[in-house]
Amino acid sequence: MKAVIAEIITIGDEILYGQIVDTNSAWMGAELSKLGIRVNQITSISDNADHITEALDNAGARADIILMTGGLGPTKDDLTKDVLTSYFNTTLKLHEPSLADIAEIFKNRCRELTELNREQAYLPAACTPVRNVLGTAPGMWFEHEGKVYVSMPGVPFEMKHMMTDIVLPQLKAYFKTPEIIHKVVQTVGIAESILAAKLENWETSLPPHLKLAYLPHLGTVRLRLTGHGSDAKVLDQEMQEEVNKLQQIIPGYIFAFGEISLEAAVGQMLKERGLTIATAESCTGGYLAHKITSISGSSAYYQGSVIAYHNEVKTRELDVKPETLQQHGAVSEPTVKEMAENVRKKFGTDIGVATSGIAGPDGGTPDKPVGTIWIAYADKYKTETKLLQFNKDRLLNIEYTTLALLNLVRQSLTATVEE
Amino acid sequence: MKAVIAEIITIGDEILYGQIVDTNSAWMGAELSKLGIRVNQITSISDNADHITEALDNAGARADIILMTGGLGPTKDDLTKDVLTSYFNTTLKLHEPSLADIAEIFKNRCRELTELNREQAYLPAACTPVRNVLGTAPGMWFEHEGKVYVSMPGVPFEMKHMMTDIVLPQLKAYFKTPEIIHKVVQTVGIAESILAAKLENWETSLPPHLKLAYLPHLGTVRLRLTGHGSDAKVLDQEMQEEVNKLQQIIPGYIFAFGEISLEAAVGQMLKERGLTIATAESCTGGYLAHKITSISGSSAYYQGSVIAYHNEVKTRELDVKPETLQQHGAVSEPTVKEMAENVRKKFGTDIGVATSGIAGPDGGTPDKPVGTIWIAYADKYKTETKLLQFNKDRLLNIEYTTLALLNLVRQSLTATVEE
Repeated sequence: MKAVIAEIITIGDEILYGQIVDTNSAWMGAELSKLGIRVNQITSISDNADHITEALDNAGARADIILMTGGLGPTKDDLTKDVLTSYFNTTLKLHEPSLADIAEIFKNRCRELTELNREQAYLPAACTPVRNVLGTAPGMWFEHEGKVYVSMPGVPFEMKHMMTDIVLPQLKAYFKTPEIIHKVVQTVGIAESILAAKLENWETSLPPHLKLAYLPHLGTVRLRLTGHGSDAKVLDQEMQEEVNKLQQIIPGYIFAFGEISLEAAVGQMLKERGLTIATAESCTGGYLAHKITSISGSSAYYQGSVIAYHNEVKTRELDVKPETLQQHGAVSEPTVKEMAENVRKKFGTDIGVATSGIAGPDGGTPDKPVGTIWIAYADKYKTETKLLQFNKDRLLNIEYTTLALLNLVRQSLTATVEE
Repeated sequence: MKAVIAEIITIGDEILYGQIVDTNSAWMGAELSKLGIRVNQITSISDNADHITEALDNAGARADIILMTGGLGPTKDDLTKDVLTSYFNTTLKLHEPSLADIAEIFKNRCRELTELNREQAYLPAACTPVRNVLGTAPGMWFEHEGKVYVSMPGVPFEMKHMMTDIVLPQLKAYFKTPEIIHKVVQTVGIAESILAAKLENWETSLPPHLKLAYLPHLGTVRLRLTGHGSDAKVLDQEMQEEVNKLQQIIPGYIFAFGEISLEAAVGQMLKERGLTIATAESCTGGYLAHKITSISGSSAYYQGSVIAYHNEVKTRELDVKPETLQQHGAVSEPTVKEMAENVRKKFGTDIGVATSGIAGPDGGTPDKPVGTIWIAYADKYKTETKLLQFNKDRLLNIEYTTLALLNLVRQSLTATVEE
C-alpha cells in the first residue's frame, strides 16, 4: 500500500522571527505518524498572500494532505481564509453554526460581539467548516483532486482539540489508512546505545510489519513498537507477545507501558502500596518536589519537603550531625544518608529521600568536581545511597539528579515487593 | 536599503516525525532578526537528496542567505555534504585542520578515530570550512551568485557556537548590514493589551527608525526597541532617551533592562541589599524554590524551604495554628500569612514568602474554585498578602503563582527602598 504523505504549513511572523518556538508541527507530526501518515515537509512562512499560494502549490504537488495552521485571526494581517477562498475559486458565505459558536464564546466572556469577530463566521462556500469550540476561528476542510487541505488556528490548544476530535479521525476515514497499533515501553537508567545492543537479537527477529523506534529524552528512552495489519485484534495480540519477550530481556529498566512519566509511574506505585514519601533536597533545590507534585492527586502520598540549601538548615531542620558535615562535607554519603533517614522520621512517612551535590557551574573542588551528586532512599528496612557524576550544566544536573532519584525510589519499591 | 532575506532549511526525520521540537530555527530567527536580517521561510525536510536539492533551488530563488542544519553525521543516511558537493559542482578534498580537530575530540574522549569520522574531514573544495570545536562535523560556507549558503550540524549547542562565533559576524560583514541596536525592557504584572494602551502615545511618537516589539511569555512581557542607524553611538544615545521616557510611563512594571529572568533580577536585588530569603510552599510544591535555585550563586541569599503539602506539615513544621486552619482553611489569607512569617522566623532570614492554593485540576469548592491561590511576603517591617485567581491548568497555575510571588518580592523590595 502506498504511503499517505502529509505536509504542514505554518503561517505567521512569530515563528520566523524566533518569538515563539513551533511546537505545533512536532505534535502534528507525531500524531500523523501514529496513523501511518508520513510528514514530508514542514514549511513556515509569513502572512503574505503570494507566499502562501506558492507554498500551497508546492505542497500540493508533493503531498496528499496539506495541514495549515495560523493566519485565521480577525485582523487585517491574517490572510489565510482569503487566500484559500481565491485558491479554491470560491466565495465567502455566512456559516450560521460558526456564528452561534462565536457568539457563545463572547457571551461567556461577558463581552460584546464585534463586527470583526462576526466576520470570522464567513467561510469559503467550498469548504466543510471544522468546529472550534475553544476559540473564534473555525477550521476549514477542503477536498480537491483527491487531496485534503485543512486550515486550523495556530493557538496550540485550539488546533490540538480540532485535530484530535475531528481532523485525525476524518483523515483516517478519508484515506482508509491501514490498522496501526502502537505500544510504548518506557525505560530509565540505561543509555540508548546499550539498550540497542541488548535488544539487537530481538529487534532483528521482528516480522517486517512490526517496527521499533528509540525515542530518548533526558535519561529515559521510550521504545515504540508500531505494527501494521488488517485485523486489529490479531495484530494487538501478536504485538503484546513481542512486548512480553522484550520485558524478559530488560525487566529492570522498564518503568511503564504507555505514555506516562516517571514521576507519574512512581506516584502510581506509592498509591497502590499505600505508602507516603517526604523529600529532603539540597542541590535539586525543590525540583524533585516540583516533579512529584506536578502530578494531580500527589497529595495522597506526598507529605512535604525540607529544602536545606544552607548547611545550617541541614543541621537545624534535618538533624544532620554537625560532625558529619565537618568530617565528610555536605556533598557526601553520610550526609545524604542522614538527610533521607531524618526527613522520613521528621515527617512520619514510609519513605524519605534526599539529594546533595554540586549542581554547578561553580563550586567544584579537585576532590568533588561540579556534577558530583549523592542521592539516598530510606524506608523502615533499609537505606540506599548512590553517587552520581554529571557535567557542568546546572539545570541538566538538577534534571538528571531528579530522574535518578525517582528511579532509585522505583527500584527500591520493586525490590521490596520481590523480596 | 533593501532588506537582507534569509531562509532556514532543517534536515532530518526526527523533526518531521515529531520526535524532537525544532528549537534551532527559532533561535536562528531571533539572532538573524537582531542583525536586521529577515527570515522569509523555514523548511524542514528529510534526508533525501532530491528533496534537499529542490529545497535549495526554491530557497535560493527567494533569499540572499540560506542556512541549513542537520544531515552532517558520519552515517550513510546523512546526505547534506554530498548533495552540496554536487549542487555546487565541486569535489571532496581532505581539510587538514578539520581532521586535526576531529582527532583531538576523539583523543579527549579516549576513543580510537574511526574511518567514518575521518571522512568527516573531507569537505567540498568550493566551500570555506566553518570550524566546529564542539563536534566532529565541520560547517561549510558557500558563496554563489552573491548569495551565501551555510551548512551546520543540527546539534543545538554546536550550531549555536558556530553561529555566534563565526557565521553571524561573517554575514554581518558580507552583507554590510546597517547598525542595529536592541534595547530590552522587561515587564511583569501587566497584560500586553493594557501595556500597549499605556504606551500608545509614546510608541506613535517614535521616529520611523525605532521600532517596538511586544514579546509576551507566561505573565511577563518583554519590550524590545530596535533601532537602525549609521552612527552606533548617536543611535544608542537616542534609544536610551526613549527608554528613559518609557520608564517614566510604566515605572512599577519594569523588572529589568536586558535579557535577564525575573528570578535572576530578584536574586540580584537580594544580593545587592545583602538580604536572605526562605520559602514556604504549599500549592507550588517546590517550583518556587526551583526557580530561585536555578540561578547559579543563589546560595548567597537563599536559605531553604519547607514544602508543606500536607496540613499536618503546616502546623508541625511551620507552626501554623490549628485554629487558623480550622477556621479559615489551608487556602486562606491567615494561613499563608502565618506560613510566610513563621518560615522567616524559623530560618532566621530577612524575608519569608509563602504560597497556598488549589492548583487543580481537582480539589475546588464553590467557595474556593480551582485556581484560587493566596501568596504572602513577610519581612521585619510588614507582611503583604495577595489573592490570585487562575484557571484549571495545574502546571500553568504553579507557574503563574511562582511568577506572581517573585513579583511580590520585587515590589516589596522596591517599596522598602523608596520609603
